[in-house]
Amino acid sequence: MNKTFMRQAIQLAIDNIKNGGGPFGAVIVKDGTVIATGVNRVTANNDPTAHAEVCAIRQACEKLGSFSLEGCDIYSSCEPCPMCLGAIYWAHLDHLYYGANKHDAAAAGFDDQFIYEELELPSGNRRLKTASLLEEEAKAPFTLWAHHEQRVEY
Amino acid sequence: MNKTFMRQAIQLAIDNIKNGGGPFGAVIVKDGTVIATGVNRVTANNDPTAHAEVCAIRQACEKLGSFSLEGCDIYSSCEPCPMCLGAIYWAHLDHLYYGANKHDAAAAGFDDQFIYEELELPSGNRRLKTASLLEEEAKAPFTLWAHHEQRVEY
Repeated sequence: MNKTFMRQAIQLAIDNIKNGGGPFGAVIVKDGTVIATGVNRVTANNDPTAHAEVCAIRQACEKLGSFSLEGCDIYSSCEPCPMCLGAIYWAHLDHLYYGANKHDAAAAGFDDQFIYEELELPSGNRRLKTASLLEEEAKAPFTLWAHHEQRVEY
Repeated sequence: MNKTFMRQAIQLAIDNIKNGGGPFGAVIVKDGTVIATGVNRVTANNDPTAHAEVCAIRQACEKLGSFSLEGCDIYSSCEPCPMCLGAIYWAHLDHLYYGANKHDAAAAGFDDQFIYEELELPSGNRRLKTASLLEEEAKAPFTLWAHHEQRVEY
């Protein structure tokens, strides 16, 4: 845990507002060095997935030439939303350090807390209208996958 | 709800395995037309965020020149993981239709169910080591954001 890296994430968030982005920043650290940074470019780039953590993860993976960030830590200026927390799990980061929390984000007008609450509901009770369709046919890719010798697991 | 679109998502998943990707596909539909497709390229592109739904959302937003997909539906060959479900909320899609479910995905070796369970735990109880740091300093970007007249909300 290193305050310098968190301060860098916070400063990225501040600078990003001036650059037309959202108030979020993140850095990824490996062996005591920042290897990637990210800021929120959702509205600037017309990309709802361009949150600071997702951008930093994509940049770090590109830099390392790997889909795994095992051995790396992420410092985020704010507690990750479910999308970003999911991305952190998929990237296999070792540690997550965050500054502000999801209640601070909600107070600033961001939906993180709402999405956390939605994910905990059964899909039929969510505000997002959801339905299952063709479940049996949709298992075919998994059957093929199980028999695919060249598959790369992650 | 349209079975043709779901069958297209399933076929994308099948074809993607042959192209070195994971067994997942998705399509985004607006006004009865497929405007974007996505497949899982995590290992192929060294990008842990390159799930089918995230790729389709990014492509659809680029095509429409918008960070909102209001008025669009997503058909995914498999129930979205928390990362992708978060992305679907942030993109403001109208409907989610999925084929296989998260238990099918778990049986095929994917961590979706594990990540759902982790997200429901308090952060101190998760396998991902998590800590809060400099919370007060980290509120500064939100304070600046509140006073930033050119901010674009989403």
